[in-house]
Amino acid sequence: MAEETAIRKDENVVYIGKKSVMCYVLAVITQFNSGATEVAIKARGKVISRAVDVAEIVRNRFMPDAKIKSIDIKTEELTSEDGSMAKVSAMEITLTK
Amino acid sequence: MAEETAIRKDENVVYIGKKSVMCYVLAVITQFNSGATEVAIKARGKVISRAVDVAEIVRNRFMPDAKIKSIDIKTEELTSEDGSMAKVSAMEITLTK
Repeated sequence: MAEETAIRKDENVVYIGKKSVMCYVLAVITQFNSGATEVAIKARGKVISRAVDVAEIVRNRFMPDAKIKSIDIKTEELTSEDGSMAKVSAMEITLTK
Repeated sequence: MAEETAIRKDENVVYIGKKSVMCYVLAVITQFNSGATEVAIKARGKVISRAVDVAEIVRNRFMPDAKIKSIDIKTEELTSEDGSMAKVSAMEITLTK
């Protein structure tokens, strides 16, 4: 698994990328099972909808006692290699159990 | 404009579909300018990320005094014509001014 495509795991954070939804569901559940009391699901751009899928599947299918602590949206500015700026929407869903 | 592709406008609600982001931005601003004090942006499935774009563009570019009142996510069950069920994530972002 190349480093770029690995699921990034910071402290209690799951970053959503282009893998299948269930990969990220598993990552969230693993963090809770490792003792985390809250897990943040972060996504940017088109995969924001996948972040919602992940949160909903975790809550409805695997952890019915998990709650949505907060949902935040914001705009992030990305600088590409040629120096141009692009704005992209970002979302963070925090689950607690 | 066919009825199916028209932007659906219920009372203070903008439903996100497959049109360009700016169509929905305009729909939200129009509702505020028509006297609405809050507007709900609703989306299902893959266009959820577009709903976030719409909310962010309205707030950052056109209505800096607009605030996010709430963001809710849920799972909706759709029944197709052949009777099969599909679950889809849904999101509602409510803006107030």
